[in-house]
Amino acid sequence: MTYQPTERTTLRRLPERAHYDPETVHSILDEGFICHIGFVVDGQPYSLPTGYARIGETLYLHGSTGSRLGLRPGMDVCVTVTLLDGIVLARSAFHHSFQYRSVMVLGRTRLVTDSGEKDAALTALVEHFMPGRSADARPGSGREQAATAVLALPLEEVSAKVRTGDPKDDDEDYELPVWAGILPLALTPGEPVPDSRLDPTIAMPSYVKDWKR
Amino acid sequence: MTYQPTERTTLRRLPERAHYDPETVHSILDEGFICHIGFVVDGQPYSLPTGYARIGETLYLHGSTGSRLGLRPGMDVCVTVTLLDGIVLARSAFHHSFQYRSVMVLGRTRLVTDSGEKDAALTALVEHFMPGRSADARPGSGREQAATAVLALPLEEVSAKVRTGDPKDDDEDYELPVWAGILPLALTPGEPVPDSRLDPTIAMPSYVKDWKR
Repeated sequence: MTYQPTERTTLRRLPERAHYDPETVHSILDEGFICHIGFVVDGQPYSLPTGYARIGETLYLHGSTGSRLGLRPGMDVCVTVTLLDGIVLARSAFHHSFQYRSVMVLGRTRLVTDSGEKDAALTALVEHFMPGRSADARPGSGREQAATAVLALPLEEVSAKVRTGDPKDDDEDYELPVWAGILPLALTPGEPVPDSRLDPTIAMPSYVKDWKR
Repeated sequence: MTYQPTERTTLRRLPERAHYDPETVHSILDEGFICHIGFVVDGQPYSLPTGYARIGETLYLHGSTGSRLGLRPGMDVCVTVTLLDGIVLARSAFHHSFQYRSVMVLGRTRLVTDSGEKDAALTALVEHFMPGRSADARPGSGREQAATAVLALPLEEVSAKVRTGDPKDDDEDYELPVWAGILPLALTPGEPVPDSRLDPTIAMPSYVKDWKR
């Protein structure tokens, strides 16, 4: 199975970077945990960072129900997840680029009203950035759940874009005495910082200590 | 001087996270180097990752002039830069969050036609992610410059949003035996990887070896 490319998800420029298979798409969505969601209010586009989770072929997003400019049900959106893997240093300024893996999902948001689906989505939203956490944290109360709108977006109109490998220079530029290559970049965890009000007898869980992506 | 908050850049939710001073806005824009640009084509919002640079109170973006779905001059856009600083682990699932610093710029793109401004912007676009690089890389040829559309966006309708500090839990939850705190995250460089076609007598420049953000 692959996602069917549409007019809107077909890469015309550098089509060799496009991927439509679920393995590639899922692996990018599962490694990232911040998306930028594009939507339109009063003709003005917005692109806002937010968390997300994936369950099967559905993305879940959440927002406050009190949000004025934010995401609403039934909105056309573009959810983009970008993993920055490095800086591409070519011999010519023109061919400088980034190593990246990104996924773009186009679709319309659906308000999740089923309480079972909403529970599963809210758990997934925490588990996605910190696997193991939802067994420890106090679960959401009825009031908290009511204050959270969960929106679903089907993985249907989807594309991934991946750049890997060496810089690409023009043939004649390979003779230039200019260093070329990749500076890899990765999001890495630092030393966890306990809450200043934390009871010091509470041990740091291994899912925090050993977190990695 | 501060950026004047507008209806569209005023945070109603968690207004204490909003900042409108150029120092905060510039520091976030200067530390990041990938933005997500929101724009609308045929009613569909897109949110796409791309590089950028700042010169004074102007952001510069570039795209291929052959791009079909991409950025064009005279477009209403939202440029968002997000720096992810950590994961906020509260005692309750509901109060989990991220440490982040983000900037949102709303405005209309202007095609840069002045060759001096275009040269400066193209240099800044490389210098922004790799200071020192433009002195080494072969500069753009006339043909390459013609193939690159440079778009400018004024820093006028701008806001920054910053979350720092401890998790915030509900009063009664501080008694729970749940570890709480921050897992810091940062984009860190790995060992540079020379191009497989690199002449091995060419030394790695210090701006690559010592790159940091």
